[in-house]
Amino acid sequence: MNAPLNLSDLHDAALAARVQHRIDHKTKPLGALGRLEALALQLALIQGTGHPRLEAPQLVVFAADHGIAARGVSAYPSDVTWQMVENFLAGGAAVSVLARQHGLALTVVDCGVRHEFGPRPGLVDAKLAAGTADSSRGPAMPRALCEAALDRGAALLRGLPGNVLLLGEMGIANTSAASLLMSRLTSLPLADCVGRGTGLDDAGLARKLTVLGEALALHARATEPLDALAAFGGLEIATMAGAVLQAAAERRLIVVDGFITTAAVAVAAALAPAVLQRCVFAHASAESGHARWLAALGVQPLLDLGLRLGEGSGAALAWPLVASACRLLDEMASFESAGVSERGA
Amino acid sequence: MNAPLNLSDLHDAALAARVQHRIDHKTKPLGALGRLEALALQLALIQGTGHPRLEAPQLVVFAADHGIAARGVSAYPSDVTWQMVENFLAGGAAVSVLARQHGLALTVVDCGVRHEFGPRPGLVDAKLAAGTADSSRGPAMPRALCEAALDRGAALLRGLPGNVLLLGEMGIANTSAASLLMSRLTSLPLADCVGRGTGLDDAGLARKLTVLGEALALHARATEPLDALAAFGGLEIATMAGAVLQAAAERRLIVVDGFITTAAVAVAAALAPAVLQRCVFAHASAESGHARWLAALGVQPLLDLGLRLGEGSGAALAWPLVASACRLLDEMASFESAGVSERGA
Repeated sequence: MNAPLNLSDLHDAALAARVQHRIDHKTKPLGALGRLEALALQLALIQGTGHPRLEAPQLVVFAADHGIAARGVSAYPSDVTWQMVENFLAGGAAVSVLARQHGLALTVVDCGVRHEFGPRPGLVDAKLAAGTADSSRGPAMPRALCEAALDRGAALLRGLPGNVLLLGEMGIANTSAASLLMSRLTSLPLADCVGRGTGLDDAGLARKLTVLGEALALHARATEPLDALAAFGGLEIATMAGAVLQAAAERRLIVVDGFITTAAVAVAAALAPAVLQRCVFAHASAESGHARWLAALGVQPLLDLGLRLGEGSGAALAWPLVASACRLLDEMASFESAGVSERGA
Repeated sequence: MNAPLNLSDLHDAALAARVQHRIDHKTKPLGALGRLEALALQLALIQGTGHPRLEAPQLVVFAADHGIAARGVSAYPSDVTWQMVENFLAGGAAVSVLARQHGLALTVVDCGVRHEFGPRPGLVDAKLAAGTADSSRGPAMPRALCEAALDRGAALLRGLPGNVLLLGEMGIANTSAASLLMSRLTSLPLADCVGRGTGLDDAGLARKLTVLGEALALHARATEPLDALAAFGGLEIATMAGAVLQAAAERRLIVVDGFITTAAVAVAAALAPAVLQRCVFAHASAESGHARWLAALGVQPLLDLGLRLGEGSGAALAWPLVASACRLLDEMASFESAGVSERGA
């Protein structure tokens, strides 16, 4: 595997103190910009400068199909994966609308969709297989394929401009893969990790729990992160994990979307914990388990709007807050420069 | 008083059903855009059309001074009010940065600042008095002045283009006025309504509570909304309440910022409850009491980022979410138009 695993620790006490001092002397009460102040400091540490800039943000939607979909774990048929890829390319999906709104370059990556798209503007072919196998009957993919997908992700990322990666995904049944990864990586009981995905009813949720229980038991020995990833899939999660590792190595900011993208980041962070220093978690998804996973990772999401769409929609919605943090650090006046009195005794 | 109080009820079952049907058939699982879906429906109902448009959003910062500041209820001296107005006009304040980022027209209104600015681009002179009197010793302002301020606010609003009003404010000691209004309008104990404002220490907070207790007792008979507003102030809250009533009458969307702007909206809603149908509450402030006030009003904020700056900074930060809701309703494809399969059984 060629995805980078040796990440520098970003902690730089002198830089942090300098930036915090600047933040504290801007024309506002101490701490009054709340989470945005911590975000500004994080951007400075990621870029290793007191004057961070956000350049050419890239929203990348990783798409693939999942063999376990055949077990009826999703409310939608697998064909929706390729149909939604078409919708992304045509500009009609939620993430298309939001990327346009915020000027985010949108790239869709076919990591393993069961469909031949042919060459298309906005679509990158990184397909290594036409979807994964059913993880409740065997491994979703061979370990070698999993590693190849990570490398594809890293290579893809190296070809992208800018210094920000926003994560998105599409893949019918990929909440199943993410739930399995969550349970294995966090050791939380499966029931704490499984939700309704795109909208299962009670019977569907019960079926999903049964099927995922079988998969988890079948791969009881897949405890290492990449073994678990190969066992449970999917190709979009593996490719994304490779892109995340590469982005982290390049000290790009990574904006994480919902449950599935958290799975990719959690795998990457299991391999290289300093990945999390580069991540902003956009929102807490309404998908049951996501908030619990964020807590297990020790991170706090920016938004909590009951979203459960994926695609990168939450990352795109949180993007203006990230941009605001950067601008406030750059453009706000200090008490001194603005001639505003500091607080009294 | 000429501020409008007779507001139409926006409930329109046929329109709501039509818009909800469109939202439900967009290419996403049912309800997967969470709060943004409710927001899109609200925009449609406010504008009385299935195809709402957000036009020329106006961020208005209402500024005034407060006599009660002399009692030491704020961590900052009163001069900071006019100094921050200068900072808004010079473009160095947080709200200036955020308004630039999002293309929001920024207007600062002198509603009663103890300073002579003279004619200045971006500043509207709506001053009726150089600040209020100390509400712990007598009424903050005569009832007639309070009504005149509401009328000024309504007149100001009539002169603004567009169909969105974002609320901001500046006024040293105005959390004191807002806390008193909150306690009087909600009947909650003062201790539940008083916080550290711009950053009081424990001794300062104790002093603030004592002073506000005196003011509340002194004006025990000021129970009607406008009597309470005249008793406690301030001129920026009264002018803002008038602007809110006018904006509501014109069916503009009103984006509410933090604790002080909630005070103005609460007064307006006490006079004309349908005001709340036109309001989006941008965030839950870190100012103690704000979340409780929102709950008492029965409304849910969009953001919770530990902000406690005022100025309209939270309203500006939430603005892209409002714009997203409108765009998603307008631009997202339906399952049918995109050729995406609907969910299975």
